[in-house]
Amino acid sequence: MESAPVILVALLHGPDRPGLVAKTSGWIFENGGNILHADQHRDTELGVFFQRIEWSAQSSAPAADSTRFQLFAETLGMNARVATSSQRRRIALFVSKFDHCFHDLILRWKAGEYACDIAAIVSNHTDLASAAKGYGLPFHHIPVTADTKAASEARQLDLLRSLDAELVILARYMQVLSADFLQKFGRPVINIHHSFLPAFAGGRPYHQAHERGVKLIGATAHYATAVLDDGPIIQQDVARVTHRHDVNDLVRKGRDLEKMVLAQAVRWHLENRVLAYGNKTVVFD
Amino acid sequence: MESAPVILVALLHGPDRPGLVAKTSGWIFENGGNILHADQHRDTELGVFFQRIEWSAQSSAPAADSTRFQLFAETLGMNARVATSSQRRRIALFVSKFDHCFHDLILRWKAGEYACDIAAIVSNHTDLASAAKGYGLPFHHIPVTADTKAASEARQLDLLRSLDAELVILARYMQVLSADFLQKFGRPVINIHHSFLPAFAGGRPYHQAHERGVKLIGATAHYATAVLDDGPIIQQDVARVTHRHDVNDLVRKGRDLEKMVLAQAVRWHLENRVLAYGNKTVVFD
Amino acid sequence: MESAPVILVALLHGPDRPGLVAKTSGWIFENGGNILHADQHRDTELGVFFQRIEWSAQSSAPAADSTRFQLFAETLGMNARVATSSQRRRIALFVSKFDHCFHDLILRWKAGEYACDIAAIVSNHTDLASAAKGYGLPFHHIPVTADTKAASEARQLDLLRSLDAELVILARYMQVLSADFLQKFGRPVINIHHSFLPAFAGGRPYHQAHERGVKLIGATAHYATAVLDDGPIIQQDVARVTHRHDVNDLVRKGRDLEKMVLAQAVRWHLENRVLAYGNKTVVFD
Amino acid sequence: MESAPVILVALLHGPDRPGLVAKTSGWIFENGGNILHADQHRDTELGVFFQRIEWSAQSSAPAADSTRFQLFAETLGMNARVATSSQRRRIALFVSKFDHCFHDLILRWKAGEYACDIAAIVSNHTDLASAAKGYGLPFHHIPVTADTKAASEARQLDLLRSLDAELVILARYMQVLSADFLQKFGRPVINIHHSFLPAFAGGRPYHQAHERGVKLIGATAHYATAVLDDGPIIQQDVARVTHRHDVNDLVRKGRDLEKMVLAQAVRWHLENRVLAYGNKTVVFD
Repeated sequence: MESAPVILVALLHGPDRPGLVAKTSGWIFENGGNILHADQHRDTELGVFFQRIEWSAQSSAPAADSTRFQLFAETLGMNARVATSSQRRRIALFVSKFDHCFHDLILRWKAGEYACDIAAIVSNHTDLASAAKGYGLPFHHIPVTADTKAASEARQLDLLRSLDAELVILARYMQVLSADFLQKFGRPVINIHHSFLPAFAGGRPYHQAHERGVKLIGATAHYATAVLDDGPIIQQDVARVTHRHDVNDLVRKGRDLEKMVLAQAVRWHLENRVLAYGNKTVVFD
Repeated sequence: MESAPVILVALLHGPDRPGLVAKTSGWIFENGGNILHADQHRDTELGVFFQRIEWSAQSSAPAADSTRFQLFAETLGMNARVATSSQRRRIALFVSKFDHCFHDLILRWKAGEYACDIAAIVSNHTDLASAAKGYGLPFHHIPVTADTKAASEARQLDLLRSLDAELVILARYMQVLSADFLQKFGRPVINIHHSFLPAFAGGRPYHQAHERGVKLIGATAHYATAVLDDGPIIQQDVARVTHRHDVNDLVRKGRDLEKMVLAQAVRWHLENRVLAYGNKTVVFD
Repeated sequence: MESAPVILVALLHGPDRPGLVAKTSGWIFENGGNILHADQHRDTELGVFFQRIEWSAQSSAPAADSTRFQLFAETLGMNARVATSSQRRRIALFVSKFDHCFHDLILRWKAGEYACDIAAIVSNHTDLASAAKGYGLPFHHIPVTADTKAASEARQLDLLRSLDAELVILARYMQVLSADFLQKFGRPVINIHHSFLPAFAGGRPYHQAHERGVKLIGATAHYATAVLDDGPIIQQDVARVTHRHDVNDLVRKGRDLEKMVLAQAVRWHLENRVLAYGNKTVVFD
Repeated sequence: MESAPVILVALLHGPDRPGLVAKTSGWIFENGGNILHADQHRDTELGVFFQRIEWSAQSSAPAADSTRFQLFAETLGMNARVATSSQRRRIALFVSKFDHCFHDLILRWKAGEYACDIAAIVSNHTDLASAAKGYGLPFHHIPVTADTKAASEARQLDLLRSLDAELVILARYMQVLSADFLQKFGRPVINIHHSFLPAFAGGRPYHQAHERGVKLIGATAHYATAVLDDGPIIQQDVARVTHRHDVNDLVRKGRDLEKMVLAQAVRWHLENRVLAYGNKTVVFD
C-alpha cells in the first residue's frame, strides 16, 4: 500500500562552498523527493550559506528521512533542522492583562492559519483565565513578583517541560524573562516589542515616541535573548501618526501593529522560514 | 592567463517535473560554475516550473557557456534565456512632453543603478530635445499624427533596428503603439500607466480617480501588448489621497508614484528578474 | 448644581459663501461653548462648503443645544447633523459564515474603541450563533433564499425598526441588499468589499485579482447604495502580493485588510467624521 | 481699479482659551477676507493652541494686512507669522558630493512644485558645480576642513545674509553646522538624516542598520538644532529590506527615501504648514 506524500522542510546553514545547491537538491532527487520550494542566501561578508528546501517525499517513515537528510547535510559541513508536515509544533502563550495579541493569535489558530497545538496559556494575572477557558485552552496562573521571580520561572520551566513546549510566544507578557530562564528553556521565545527597535527600547515606548515627536510608530517581533529588547529581529512594521494623536491614540493604533507584526513572525517561525544567526535573521518568505 | 569571473543569469520555464532543480544546479556545478542565487516557482494550476539562476563562471567564453546551458535546458524541455554580466542591454526611451520619468530614469542610469546603454531618446515632440542633449544622449524627433501614425511607426522601427535596441521604455509616451508595431519589434516594451490597473484604464486616469472618490491612487508598470493598458503587470504601487486633493494634486502625487514604479520595473527587467507568461509575470526579486 | 460638560459634534454642508467659519464659531462662542476641533473643506468645483466642529458645552440640555445649532445652521443655508457625547449609536451587524470581521469589530467594541451599542447580530446562517451568544449579544437568524428574499428583507426591516438601529454594518454579509431595502431603511449601511474598488467589483474578487496578476490586493469600505459595490468610498487599503501567492493566500491576506479597513471606516463613522455627498465622502480625520 | 485677490497664510500659536477660532475667523470676515482653509490643534498637555488659516483678501496692500493681522493676534496673546502668496521665499541649498536630493529638489522646483527662488547652491566640494551651472543656478564653493570650519561658516553666513536667504536646506551636506552658526543664522535649516530617528543617529546609519538586522530602513527630515540629528521632526518614512540587501542596496534604496522625505518636508515648510514648538512639529497638511 502506498503512503500519502509527506512534506519535509529543511533549514540549513554552514560555511559556503561551491556545489551546495547541486548537492542538496541532488540528494533529494536521488531519494525520490520532489522539491516544491527552494531558497538560498549567502552572507558574503561572513561566508555563510543558508538554505530552505521544501520537498514532498513518498515515504512511510518521514522521521527517518529527516534524520538521513540531517546526516547528509553534516557531511557537507552544514547544520540542518528538518521538520515534517505531520508534526504539529506545541506552543505556549505567555500573556499578562492586555488581550489583543492573545485573541488575535488564537482566532488565527482557530481559523487554521497556524499548524500547531496551543499547549498552554501562562499568565502572571488571572484576567484572561475565563477567555482562555472560553476557547477551551488550559490556563496556568503563575504569579510573578520581584521576590518570587526565580521560583516563578522555575514553575514556568517545569510546566513547559512537562508539556514539551517547542516555542514560547510572549504576547504582551510585560515581564522580562531572565537569561537563566532562556538558557534553561533552550528553545525559541518570540517577543513583541511595541516600538520600531532599536528606537525606544525599554519601558513605555509609546510615551517615549510621543515625547520625541516621531511621525511613525512601530512594532518589532524578535527572538528574546538575555539582553532586553535586543535579539534577532523577525519582523517590523510602522504606522503613521501626527501631532493630533495623543499617547492613548498611539496605544490604540499600536495594538493593530503589534497584532499584525507578531502574527506574521509566528507564521514564519511555524512554517520554518526563519533562521537566526548572530543577532540577525534570514527570513525565507 | 586566468580570465576574470563572469556572471551568468538564466531565466527558465517549462513543464514541471521532478529533479529540475537538481539537474540545472548539477550542470552548473559540473561545468565549474558557482551558484550565487537561485530561485524557483511552480504554478501548480498550470504545471509550469520557473527558475532564475545566477552563477559565476571561470570562463573565457561566456557566450559559448550561455549557448551550452540553453541547449542543456532544452533537453529538460525548458525554454531558457541567458544573459552575461559583460553584456549591456541597449534601450530606447520613448517620451512625449512630461519629463519626470525621463529625468528619473536617466539620473538613475548616470548614478550607476542600471547596467545598460541608452541608445536613443525618441519623442513625438521636441520639448525634451535640449534636456537629452544636456545629458549627452541622442534625441530623435519622430512626429506622430493620426494620419501619419503608420509611417511614424515604420520610422521608429527602422531606428530601433538600426540601434539593435533590446528594450523600449514608454516613459509617459502618451501614444498607443499599434499591435503591428509591437509584433514587428518583437522585443519587450515596458509602459507606465498612471492608475492602479485594472482600475481606470484608458485616458485621464487621475480625473477618473478623482471622479470616483477613491482614497488611494496608483501606478502600474507593465509589458505593452496589443490591448491598451493590459499586458503582464510587473510592478504597482499606491499613495493615499483625501478629499482635500484636487486633480492637480493627484497628478503631482502621481508623478512620484510613476517614477518609483517604472524605475523598479526597469531595474527588475534589466537584472533579468522578470518572466512573463500568459498575462502575468513572475518577478524573482 | 453645575452639569458636567457635554461634547457636541456637528457635521455641516451647504453652498459656500464668505463668513461661514466666522459665523459658526461665533455662534458657539456666544452660546458658551469651547471649540475643541474644527475642520472644514470646500469643493471648489461644486461650490460646496463642508465643516465638522466639535465643542464642549456647559449645558444641562444638550438635545436642545443640538436643535438650536441646527436651526442656526439652516439660517446659513446649511444642512447640519449634530451628535452629543451622551448618545450611544445603536448598530446592527449583518454577518454570514465568515467570522473575521465579526470577531474583530466586537473585540474592538469590547476594548472600548467604539462608543456604540451592538443591538443585534443578524445572519442568514446559524454558524455564528454560539459565538454571538458567547459575547452576550442577541443573534437573529433570518434565512435568505432567492425565493424568500423580499420576505426576509421585510423581517430584517421590522427588526431594525424595533431596535431603532441607526447603522447597519455588513461584515462580510455576502448577500446583496435590495434598493428597496436601502430606501426603506433610510439610514447608513457600511459594506466591506474585498477588492480595491472600482477594480474587481462583483463576485470572487480575489479570484479575479489572481487571474489578472496584480501585485497588490485591496479592500474597500463604502456606504451601500442601490448599485452593487458602488457607493461613496470611506476607506481603502492594499497589501503586496507576489506570484508566490495563490488564491488561498490572497484570501488569508485579504482577511487582515478587510478587518483593518472596515474597522477604520466604522470608527470614522461613529465619531461623526464622514460626510457623504454625491458618490464621494469627506472624511475629517 | 480693483486689485487681484491675494492669498495670506497665518501660522499662530499661544496659550489656549475659549473663543480663539471665533475671533480669528471673525477678524478675517470683518476685514473682507474669505477663509479658504483653516485648521487648528490644541496640545491639551501644554495648554497651547495652534492654528493655520489661509484666506483670500481683496487687498492692494497685503504687507499691511499681514502686519494688521499680526497685531490683532498679539492682542489675543498669540504669536503669528503671516506669509502672502506674492512673496517667494529665498532658499539656499547646501550640498556635498551626493547629488540625488540635489537633482530631485531642483527638478521639482523647475516643475513648479515649489514657490520659491533658489538663491544659491553652496558646497564644500566642486563636484556639483557644473550640474548647478547646467540648471542656471549660482554655485558657491566654500571648502570646509577641521581647521577652517569657523572661517568657512563665517563665509557661509556672509553669503546667506547678502542673499537674504530665508531657509537653508541641507541636501545630504555631510557636514555638521555648529550651534554658533545656527544661532547666528537665526532662520530655519532643514536637514535630511538617512535613518528612522531616533534610531541610528550619527555616522553611517545604513551600516548601523545593516549591522542590527532591521527589516525596515528609514529617513527623517528635521529642523537642525545644536544637537546632532536631533531637532523637531517634520517627516519620516521607511522602506522594507530583507536579509538579501547588503549595505549598498540599503544605500540605493535609501536614496529614494531621502528624496521623498526631504521633498515633502520642504513642500510643507514652503507652504507654511509647519509649526515647530519644543522638540516637535505641528504639520497642518
